[in-house]
Amino acid sequence: MTNDVKRVYQHGTLALLIPGLFTGTMTVAELLTHGNFGIGTAHGLAGELVLLDGHAYTVNGDGQVTELAPDGTVPFATVHWQDSSLPTQAVHQRTKAELETQILAQAPLKNLFFAVKMTGTFKVMHTRAVQTQQEPYPNLTVATRVQPEFEQTDVTGTLIGYYAPALYQGAAVAGYHVHFLNDTHDFGGHILDYTVVDAQMTLQPFETFEQHFPSDNEAFLKSDFDLQQVNADIEEAEH
Amino acid sequence: MTNDVKRVYQHGTLALLIPGLFTGTMTVAELLTHGNFGIGTAHGLAGELVLLDGHAYTVNGDGQVTELAPDGTVPFATVHWQDSSLPTQAVHQRTKAELETQILAQAPLKNLFFAVKMTGTFKVMHTRAVQTQQEPYPNLTVATRVQPEFEQTDVTGTLIGYYAPALYQGAAVAGYHVHFLNDTHDFGGHILDYTVVDAQMTLQPFETFEQHFPSDNEAFLKSDFDLQQVNADIEEAEH
Repeated sequence: MTNDVKRVYQHGTLALLIPGLFTGTMTVAELLTHGNFGIGTAHGLAGELVLLDGHAYTVNGDGQVTELAPDGTVPFATVHWQDSSLPTQAVHQRTKAELETQILAQAPLKNLFFAVKMTGTFKVMHTRAVQTQQEPYPNLTVATRVQPEFEQTDVTGTLIGYYAPALYQGAAVAGYHVHFLNDTHDFGGHILDYTVVDAQMTLQPFETFEQHFPSDNEAFLKSDFDLQQVNADIEEAEH
Repeated sequence: MTNDVKRVYQHGTLALLIPGLFTGTMTVAELLTHGNFGIGTAHGLAGELVLLDGHAYTVNGDGQVTELAPDGTVPFATVHWQDSSLPTQAVHQRTKAELETQILAQAPLKNLFFAVKMTGTFKVMHTRAVQTQQEPYPNLTVATRVQPEFEQTDVTGTLIGYYAPALYQGAAVAGYHVHFLNDTHDFGGHILDYTVVDAQMTLQPFETFEQHFPSDNEAFLKSDFDLQQVNADIEEAEH
């Protein structure tokens, strides 16, 4: 069976992180059967997950980059099969805000999920990383109250992540949600801001959003999700 | 490949009906490759769609039941492969409200999508059906301002539909959304209320919600969905 490049796969929901359901419910090995690029977090909120070419890395709250073993687990991750036949776009001297606006202006993508992958040199890359939590887990707001930030200049590496339509806020992060890993694998995280010097970007729109639930996880099944709180907390924790 | 009974497939979103995107964007033939039971609506909002055992029926605003041809199209439909190995539950003398509460009380299903299928005799079945719209299409609120209602007593037939978690309001109808077709195929529609005399019910929880978008439909791609309006309109049009 060929890998479906028109499909984005998500295990878990962003909403389940809000009350603190940080337990890993899918192995990295299984996750990688659904895609070779993506983002997410690891068991216990142990860092920002960056999937590049079939390898799963985390950037933890100390800024350290580790490759996860196949039996490592994730509570929440989004992955896709990168379409190697896609055209790349050259990006020069653009801020994050400029580029993100430009992407939506050039094609009607706002109502679709799409992946953004960009490899090149960044004048500035400003990231953040969650800190590993211990059981009993606090909720996401408490867990992310202190989030170490990192910044490098003139850094080369890969940005990877997704745009999700506004309708899916709560299942995913509505709008852009992108992570970074540098080429030497010692810097990265959840992206707060950047300025591109020179990079090659691909946009991969999807016709299918495949939402997989941790349907045998008792804590997930029994949770009461307060949707207004979910929205408020996503704004606070993810932006 | 065996059909995946743990997966519910949806083409289009409820939200796209709100501004009046009633154009069919998937054929019935293709829809039936994703499931043999389900609900939805047809091109031009031409009735309430009821999929039973691989056949797609519509109940239109005149109360007439028609089987759709394979080249008929749908703007929005949700389907699944009915798991024939599931246990059935006997239901006696229950109102809709009693039964729906009881379902969620007996197992932690509230955070999953699940299908409800119930075959038997109903003391009362109260339905509604949308009326076929002509282009240029009005929005859903205008289109559903007049909706014929139908009621039969002592009717035998099949209830089919879904429960969707609150998080997916807008993509789907949060909570229960069920349709009906009687055994003689001359009465049915979107269910408003019922009382069961005797029926056999199956509940089929899903671990995957597969959301397919009409990604080559220009009108869909360019629409601005006002999410607060979407929520308000779903409450008015679907409940």
